[in-house]
Amino acid sequence: MAAEIVNPRSDSESLQGHTEQGSGAEPLDSFDPAFALHRGGKMAVQATVPIRDKDDLSLAYTPGVAKVCSAIAEQPELVHDYTWKSSVVAVVTDGTAVLGLGDIGPEASLPVMEGKAILFKQFGGVDAVPIALNCTDVDEIVETVVRLAPSFGGVNLEDISAPRCFEIERRLQERLDIPVFHDDQHGTAVVTLAALRNAARLTGRPLGDLRAVISGAGAAGVAIAKMLVEAGIGDVAVADRKGVVSRDREDLTPIKRELASFTNKAGLSGSLEDALAGADVFIGVSGGTVPEPAVASMAEGAFVFAMANPDPEVHPEVAHKYAAVVATGRSDFPNQINNVLAFPGIFAGALQVRASRITEGMKLAAAEALAAVVGDDLAADYVIPSPFDERVAPAVTAAVAAAARAEGVARH
Amino acid sequence: MAAEIVNPRSDSESLQGHTEQGSGAEPLDSFDPAFALHRGGKMAVQATVPIRDKDDLSLAYTPGVAKVCSAIAEQPELVHDYTWKSSVVAVVTDGTAVLGLGDIGPEASLPVMEGKAILFKQFGGVDAVPIALNCTDVDEIVETVVRLAPSFGGVNLEDISAPRCFEIERRLQERLDIPVFHDDQHGTAVVTLAALRNAARLTGRPLGDLRAVISGAGAAGVAIAKMLVEAGIGDVAVADRKGVVSRDREDLTPIKRELASFTNKAGLSGSLEDALAGADVFIGVSGGTVPEPAVASMAEGAFVFAMANPDPEVHPEVAHKYAAVVATGRSDFPNQINNVLAFPGIFAGALQVRASRITEGMKLAAAEALAAVVGDDLAADYVIPSPFDERVAPAVTAAVAAAARAEGVARH
Repeated sequence: MAAEIVNPRSDSESLQGHTEQGSGAEPLDSFDPAFALHRGGKMAVQATVPIRDKDDLSLAYTPGVAKVCSAIAEQPELVHDYTWKSSVVAVVTDGTAVLGLGDIGPEASLPVMEGKAILFKQFGGVDAVPIALNCTDVDEIVETVVRLAPSFGGVNLEDISAPRCFEIERRLQERLDIPVFHDDQHGTAVVTLAALRNAARLTGRPLGDLRAVISGAGAAGVAIAKMLVEAGIGDVAVADRKGVVSRDREDLTPIKRELASFTNKAGLSGSLEDALAGADVFIGVSGGTVPEPAVASMAEGAFVFAMANPDPEVHPEVAHKYAAVVATGRSDFPNQINNVLAFPGIFAGALQVRASRITEGMKLAAAEALAAVVGDDLAADYVIPSPFDERVAPAVTAAVAAAARAEGVARH
Repeated sequence: MAAEIVNPRSDSESLQGHTEQGSGAEPLDSFDPAFALHRGGKMAVQATVPIRDKDDLSLAYTPGVAKVCSAIAEQPELVHDYTWKSSVVAVVTDGTAVLGLGDIGPEASLPVMEGKAILFKQFGGVDAVPIALNCTDVDEIVETVVRLAPSFGGVNLEDISAPRCFEIERRLQERLDIPVFHDDQHGTAVVTLAALRNAARLTGRPLGDLRAVISGAGAAGVAIAKMLVEAGIGDVAVADRKGVVSRDREDLTPIKRELASFTNKAGLSGSLEDALAGADVFIGVSGGTVPEPAVASMAEGAFVFAMANPDPEVHPEVAHKYAAVVATGRSDFPNQINNVLAFPGIFAGALQVRASRITEGMKLAAAEALAAVVGDDLAADYVIPSPFDERVAPAVTAAVAAAARAEGVARH
């Protein structure tokens, strides 16, 4: 029933594109396949109903559409049935913390946001629209997203720098009745927990016996710490550039003070390296390098998840000398901790049941479902599935939808 | 090269959809084809690059995308080459003046905005995204659209009530370097002028000899009046509910005072009916009914464009008794004045040359190109092409792009 769609950026145009130069700008490396691929962008809009003749037009647009509008005006919840609201997510950024590139602004962030949008579609069947904002003030971002929210079924916050990302997410979720999810926090945490669950299962260790050390107290580090504690990891210590976050430190931001209140039961202080001595788990979300002696000082059979991209905090070859399980953020090593394993299914599940928010229980359920995909194939080099494993998104989607129902946030 | 996309709203789902009921709401007329068609919405997002394996993923997302981001950060104009910005328009509304339904709010307006978006795609190859805002304050709408503008190549304002629509458009265009276009004003004006040009050609009358009367001083009426004057129509009078807008009236809003300054050279006063006596052209964009004697009082060989939907101000059967050319807004009579003849090509042309705005010259060029499509087939029942005439959008696109270059607002 879909209309025949002519893609304005056809194959030949994309392929030829890299030989042209745009906008009178300096020539780029025209042989770089990334530029060739990105020519003209990576996404398009598609009609899902036909407009072949005036009868079609009269149904899809005036006068037929008026009945549908009137019905929604009378019964607001019908917007979920008769528009794409329930299948579309806004991918919102302010361009302040893009990949490892930092604050490059909204326009330069767009290739990442488009990439995210097409991953939503490819892996979760979720429509997503890049919304890159040219404001960085927390109040302005919150107001802007609240105002455009009627058009969307969910908000995925992306590449917004800490600590603003925490307040923006919290305030948006308070104001909106659709899910607001900062993927750099929670997506990373879900996939990390899934890998950690499987590493623990592989080595026969209860989660409660594990002591983890996280390097990095930004968006990902804070969210991972919270999630590991919720999942029942024995103890979690988080280190920032000044060392382990502890109640004794007087230089903590409000977020880190909160972090200190529920982490580091052991009362560690000192450097990251100090904390690693005897630790069972290292989780790197900071960049930088962990010296080999610190890795060597970890407990027997440790897990090293060195997730910085493109340079892991511990090179896998080094990590393998001491650790039982090694994971990275890279696709060219085994056990890639990749957010795409989580966010498409999390949003697909939340949208399916029209969840008003994404709760901790839904995230924990996503991590469990993701871990379970590995099943009996569990091995040291296979504690997390491939992003291209077709079982992943359906499993996460179903688990998240069920958890939303169980937690009372589903509306469908 | 496009990835294989699974449309989550497949044919069977759409067709079955009308037998379910959503959200626990009251049953709708499940046999109404408009509801069946709208089930699940009318649009989707589509990837235009493949993500089949980890090599694809590494190019379209991290790490490959980082090079593209860095290039845009260094040379901002490259955003037009390497993202979908140059092909995507935001369809922005606040839901205050939706069709004839009035202020029904952002959610209830979404079916219209989706319809608009798919018409952009179908007829102009332009990607478009519905952005329905839940604020109606002029400052708030302007700030919101300015903040989200980095993601878009243009802004189509839609169904925003007068007089706020005028100020919103003006202020947004001042602040943004991408086209801002209120279609209810200018799209209507362009198509009306095209029809009027052909009616004048058919009857052998110079535009300068014509006296036109417009019923309605809202968004469409004001824009049509401006455009007719710019196109060289002899005289234009606009009537609101209180009668003809003239310099003598003391109850005029600022917009109507401006209107009075360049219309009604004849110095008419009194009612719409008074103004129609001896007039050559009637243009109805107000609703209501014009009494038959007023139509009968028009000049010999008059043009009656009664564009209110679904009930024209003058029924075509009545109009034909007195007028040489009759047009309506309806698809079931000849000569449909339909905005879809203009906006897809206008934006396609503006985006093609990366115009910073849509000038009066570009709109006049669009009207000329649209009128010219009719060519030698010109007849009383064919002064404007069908929306499904495949020559329309390319002709308008080319004319608008050329005019943008001629007027110095093209950047590509």
